[in-house]
Amino acid sequence: MRIAVVAPSCTLDPTIPARLDPLAAAHGHEVYFHPQCFLSEGHFAGPDAARVAALVEVANDPAFDAVWFARGGYGACRVAEDALTQFGPAARSKYYLGYSDAGFLLAGLYARGIGKPVHAPMPSDLNREGGEGAVARVLAWLAACRAPAQAGAHLSQDARLRPSPEHTNLQTAFNLTVLSQLLGTLLQPDLTNHILMIEEVGEYLYRIDRSLFHITSNPGIRRIKGLMLGRCSDIPPNHPDFGRDVESITREWCSRSGIAYLGRADIGHDINNAIIPFGETI
Amino acid sequence: MRIAVVAPSCTLDPTIPARLDPLAAAHGHEVYFHPQCFLSEGHFAGPDAARVAALVEVANDPAFDAVWFARGGYGACRVAEDALTQFGPAARSKYYLGYSDAGFLLAGLYARGIGKPVHAPMPSDLNREGGEGAVARVLAWLAACRAPAQAGAHLSQDARLRPSPEHTNLQTAFNLTVLSQLLGTLLQPDLTNHILMIEEVGEYLYRIDRSLFHITSNPGIRRIKGLMLGRCSDIPPNHPDFGRDVESITREWCSRSGIAYLGRADIGHDINNAIIPFGETI
Repeated sequence: MRIAVVAPSCTLDPTIPARLDPLAAAHGHEVYFHPQCFLSEGHFAGPDAARVAALVEVANDPAFDAVWFARGGYGACRVAEDALTQFGPAARSKYYLGYSDAGFLLAGLYARGIGKPVHAPMPSDLNREGGEGAVARVLAWLAACRAPAQAGAHLSQDARLRPSPEHTNLQTAFNLTVLSQLLGTLLQPDLTNHILMIEEVGEYLYRIDRSLFHITSNPGIRRIKGLMLGRCSDIPPNHPDFGRDVESITREWCSRSGIAYLGRADIGHDINNAIIPFGETI
Repeated sequence: MRIAVVAPSCTLDPTIPARLDPLAAAHGHEVYFHPQCFLSEGHFAGPDAARVAALVEVANDPAFDAVWFARGGYGACRVAEDALTQFGPAARSKYYLGYSDAGFLLAGLYARGIGKPVHAPMPSDLNREGGEGAVARVLAWLAACRAPAQAGAHLSQDARLRPSPEHTNLQTAFNLTVLSQLLGTLLQPDLTNHILMIEEVGEYLYRIDRSLFHITSNPGIRRIKGLMLGRCSDIPPNHPDFGRDVESITREWCSRSGIAYLGRADIGHDINNAIIPFGETI
């Protein structure tokens, strides 16, 4: 498979390509790192215009089967609307993979029924201890997607478009804060009957509580089939002690809002972060 | 005026009443500190049920002319919907004063047309250096409201209800993060034709940028007359340097979203925080 890497958020460690290329080759993939990945302007991997242009370029290039977001951080919401409106026909038959801040784009793609958004580890995960395993899982998953592609049906029209609402147990996965910050914008997808998995990193319990208030109070989110709680890591100590843990907080907001709590999900900012193709049945 | 203080968020410093009472008396007010203000359970000023009960009790008590939120922190969103649905007729002819986390309640009150929500300094501001001045301004402002009250018209039906949409330049003020976190919930008020003032404290520039993306991408917020930027204090250093300041960030999101940027507002987490009665013309 031909995979393009772009960085809609923060700049990518320039040592990543040399470490990723052999892994990709071992799975039969070719990876193109767009030069934009290594730009840096303030917080971001280059100016908004450069990030939009790179993303639009690879999405609209029929030579690529997948667009892999290089890393998270922050910045995808600044380019998502601009970029998505420029996506053409070739963009519709692609996989889009990433998590964390990339969720702004996965959400917007899913809202518009463009391609197959996939919550998945990213190239930058190579910088985690043991991250090769996470990256290799993505490459193996894409390789398994490849066979039907060669049969000309790897990403049928049915798979590209959002499944019809009578289907249930359709899965999606988001960083909690990112999901909260896209509610009510054009990036918010219809998650009716979906199983929504959330994960978080580096947020105080009071902020997790507030974000859970926000998402579970949203009429669109209240139409989900149920919520699954991924891993919430690097939670700074709350002063005073918050008095409850993240699972009891989640259960409480689910109970208050009439959303089914469906247990733990295998996602998070770590090397075990599961691959969750949006809209597929669990 | 008879003023009731309750704490829907965090617990109040128990030394505040002895310092506030003489100031209040000097302005002709009597202040009742509900005992709930001094409860403490985990992060909050007592359990949710106790915070709801205290707020409902003072709102529905015709003996009080104003409900003053003791302090911010976090917790008002956990009690707002429960409490507001229990507000009866006596709750409609009261002032409700506070800022920061209390914005969840001011928003919900304004959304339901209950009483007169007022962005204003709080009793806990006495713990800021020079905070007596901020608290005294609120007491003086309420005293000025009192005269028409004695004539039986201090808070007419017209003033209580949200002004009709043909009015413009109606003012509101919120903490940016609080506003972001209530968008799409039942607490979101209709701010059509309003001048929206925002302020922030203790947030990274990348988070301020993300929150501004969120609020300026909301269809309801896009119907405002214009945005004014209050003070954003205690911004932690961004790594790497964010590359733009908070005013240029705000101008940029206003420009992108078609919202008029109307300059600076005199609000913030400080002793100069202005009193902004919701829905009154600037």
